[in-house]
Amino acid sequence: MKNAIDFYFDFSSPYAYFASMEIDELAKKHGLSVHWHPILLGAIFKKTGAKPLLQTPLKGDYAHHDLERIARKKRLPFTLPVNFPFAALAACRAFYWIRREDDNLAISFAKNIFKAGYQMRLDISDPKTVIDLSSALGLDSGRIEPALSSETIKEELRNEVSLAEQRGVFGSPFFIFEDEPFWGHDRMATLDEWLSHKGW
Amino acid sequence: MKNAIDFYFDFSSPYAYFASMEIDELAKKHGLSVHWHPILLGAIFKKTGAKPLLQTPLKGDYAHHDLERIARKKRLPFTLPVNFPFAALAACRAFYWIRREDDNLAISFAKNIFKAGYQMRLDISDPKTVIDLSSALGLDSGRIEPALSSETIKEELRNEVSLAEQRGVFGSPFFIFEDEPFWGHDRMATLDEWLSHKGW
Repeated sequence: MKNAIDFYFDFSSPYAYFASMEIDELAKKHGLSVHWHPILLGAIFKKTGAKPLLQTPLKGDYAHHDLERIARKKRLPFTLPVNFPFAALAACRAFYWIRREDDNLAISFAKNIFKAGYQMRLDISDPKTVIDLSSALGLDSGRIEPALSSETIKEELRNEVSLAEQRGVFGSPFFIFEDEPFWGHDRMATLDEWLSHKGW
Repeated sequence: MKNAIDFYFDFSSPYAYFASMEIDELAKKHGLSVHWHPILLGAIFKKTGAKPLLQTPLKGDYAHHDLERIARKKRLPFTLPVNFPFAALAACRAFYWIRREDDNLAISFAKNIFKAGYQMRLDISDPKTVIDLSSALGLDSGRIEPALSSETIKEELRNEVSLAEQRGVFGSPFFIFEDEPFWGHDRMATLDEWLSHKGW
């Protein structure tokens, strides 16, 4: 999309947590807006054969070390949520339901989910946590609970995942700017440079 | 090792090609030397479940695009060698044989293997190419050919791969500075920063 960065992520990705704390500032620097797209990578991982990162021999140890190193560098708190890894079904559905009400509120909700999980070690896989965080933003908990199992919202999430895959998204975080793809938190610097130079 | 960067790589890794063209300058900037360690990642990939990058759905398309983008950015020629992907057995063995003669000559040889494959599209999996590139550096082709099947050299390579795995190496390129690991060409900037700040 013109003048916007598409930000694809899975709430169960620790690298996406760091990206979520930084993407707004990066976009603002270039006068761009950000479209947030929480997705579930499980189905895409089946096609690419990718395995849960932190459970992979050797690579998992490295990732743990690397995540702590990023946290120190960025001076951000960091922990893994309880029940990690998890499928972020409830958080994704809540996001798309909130987005129908207000785009900015949905973004605030997404940031709070990341902070609750990766700063406070709350169980963000639990629908109860998801509902609490929604209510805390002023949303009606009596409306959000049924929304989490509404067919319309389920379909909206499925469509987002399917569109992500069509656009080549296979990991998290993943950024797309005018069809140019950037995969990984460590590629945010490349994205930044790309935006400064208008490509190369 | 003190005052040195350990540079682990597989000759069949295109990202290692880019790293091989840049690592000397990075090390020099920090007054460090580089220890080059060509390895075969096949056995380690079996443990981590990693698949050949460019053959992986979605991820492979991204990597092709990303490699071309890096080449443009770094103003380096880039192609894939013929017979890609391949096991770089002959090149690895030749490297360790040459290193017994002269460490700098072995590094020149490694760079020439990368250039022959990723700039000239030669078949660097072919022992003939490996022998030609060795001879071109003034080495005796009558000695290098038997060296490629010598038990001593085979064992030296096996030891290097085994030591790499013990040190947590699971991808290419992979850098270690005083036990601090950095995986990936895109982490050379992080390594650079780490060396500037003496960690964080």
